[in-house]
Amino acid sequence: MSEPTFAFDLDTAVRPVSGTAGPGLWVGQLTDRWDIVDKPNGGYVLATAVRAMSGAVANHPDPFTVTAHYLRPSEAGPVDIDVEVVRTGRKLSTITASFSQGGKARIQVLGTFGDLNERIEAGGATHLRSGAPIDVEPPTTAIHRGATTPLGEEMRIALQTDLRMHPDTGWIVGKPSGTAEVRGWIRFADGREPDVSALPFFADALPPALFELDSLGWVPTIELTVHVRAKPAPGWLRCVMSTRFLADGYFEEDGEIWDSRGVLVAQSRQLGMVFRP
Amino acid sequence: MSEPTFAFDLDTAVRPVSGTAGPGLWVGQLTDRWDIVDKPNGGYVLATAVRAMSGAVANHPDPFTVTAHYLRPSEAGPVDIDVEVVRTGRKLSTITASFSQGGKARIQVLGTFGDLNERIEAGGATHLRSGAPIDVEPPTTAIHRGATTPLGEEMRIALQTDLRMHPDTGWIVGKPSGTAEVRGWIRFADGREPDVSALPFFADALPPALFELDSLGWVPTIELTVHVRAKPAPGWLRCVMSTRFLADGYFEEDGEIWDSRGVLVAQSRQLGMVFRP
Repeated sequence: MSEPTFAFDLDTAVRPVSGTAGPGLWVGQLTDRWDIVDKPNGGYVLATAVRAMSGAVANHPDPFTVTAHYLRPSEAGPVDIDVEVVRTGRKLSTITASFSQGGKARIQVLGTFGDLNERIEAGGATHLRSGAPIDVEPPTTAIHRGATTPLGEEMRIALQTDLRMHPDTGWIVGKPSGTAEVRGWIRFADGREPDVSALPFFADALPPALFELDSLGWVPTIELTVHVRAKPAPGWLRCVMSTRFLADGYFEEDGEIWDSRGVLVAQSRQLGMVFRP
Repeated sequence: MSEPTFAFDLDTAVRPVSGTAGPGLWVGQLTDRWDIVDKPNGGYVLATAVRAMSGAVANHPDPFTVTAHYLRPSEAGPVDIDVEVVRTGRKLSTITASFSQGGKARIQVLGTFGDLNERIEAGGATHLRSGAPIDVEPPTTAIHRGATTPLGEEMRIALQTDLRMHPDTGWIVGKPSGTAEVRGWIRFADGREPDVSALPFFADALPPALFELDSLGWVPTIELTVHVRAKPAPGWLRCVMSTRFLADGYFEEDGEIWDSRGVLVAQSRQLGMVFRP
């Protein structure tokens, strides 16, 4: 196998300390290339953990559903990922990962893994209530995410991803719509095509839907759950993120990710809080 | 403290083996009073696990977000719940529970707990896009859930809960609506009022929304996540459950639970599969 040449593969690379894939301790190295201001993006951290979990059971590489609880911000540098297999069955394996840095727990992950190819072969009932939220290709009027936040802070993640927000995105032009929903197209900046391992990252890569309520600021994630529904085709991913209920400072954010064929490839939900220093 | 007299309290009772609340091994006893056909309802099993997790950190009794992965069906009889605190902070504690019977893992739970009273005192931004899905009280035309499934199998859970389905529920009268959404009112049959500990149970207590697609049958839950958003007031809980995407035999089901004041008290999402024997 040749060395990975794309940023996402390099920066989420993990290896089992024992030298053999399976449960046990895995190590890796977070970089600062996926930072939101001064901390690694939560989806990037989760994707790194999932990469180790994917190696725990040979025939169950795909995360069907993963939940991460964010305990403390992560930082660039070495990571320890302790992977345990709770149960492995014929179709599914349930796996936990304790992700730490310098002996401090950063995220805790619980997931059920399987083989998406097998799922597709099995076929089964299909019924989709709605289609992809936006066109396959971003229009020329789509708004490039800049390398700074609305508050002027640096966004290194913007150098690794090509994110085009829908032209209707109000908060970017200082006119929040009042409805907490954002839509956009996303892909890696270096041409790497999307795959299953990238979906946990993309599920947390858009700006918060809450920005459309005029509540710019820090909205830390407490928990993020991603359901991977299919393998994505090459090309742009189309994302819609929305928040329906913000109460007592806590909110959910629901996401859908659609691929270029018009297939729903992931759904996400997070519980977040509006941080007031 | 007097002995509990309500079925839900009796049947989810757990105690720490050490005699002192905190992390470690807890034990309890599932009963068959919450069975769907011949297995305990998944929400009942989760509620029992959450009861132990609630005792792990003294000032963080409330599950803000809990995720359960279902590994094997549970059964009536003794349970072991191994509770670990991953991290405890000032506002939040992250806790895992490994729930087993006879040495076999049944469900694995990951949750973040806190104190809902503190959240209310903190106040914070509030914005709800939509209101409760149905009236406060069930109309006389609401449909009582019977003690058998559509396939004629026994539902012991129906003796413990008073569930009234919305009069528009099509599948009950053999006319599925074609839209995978169900609405209903629910409370305990013995008059116990709802509280936070009951919400993980109620989040999984309605019949599957998929029944409105004419796909009666077994739809096992792989993963269930419940966000508790507020403490419920006494009275009926109002629930709406819906599925938007069923593909390759897998589906999400999203739920909302509203209390008698019109407060959203919980949201849920599960990943399930349509089981074809």
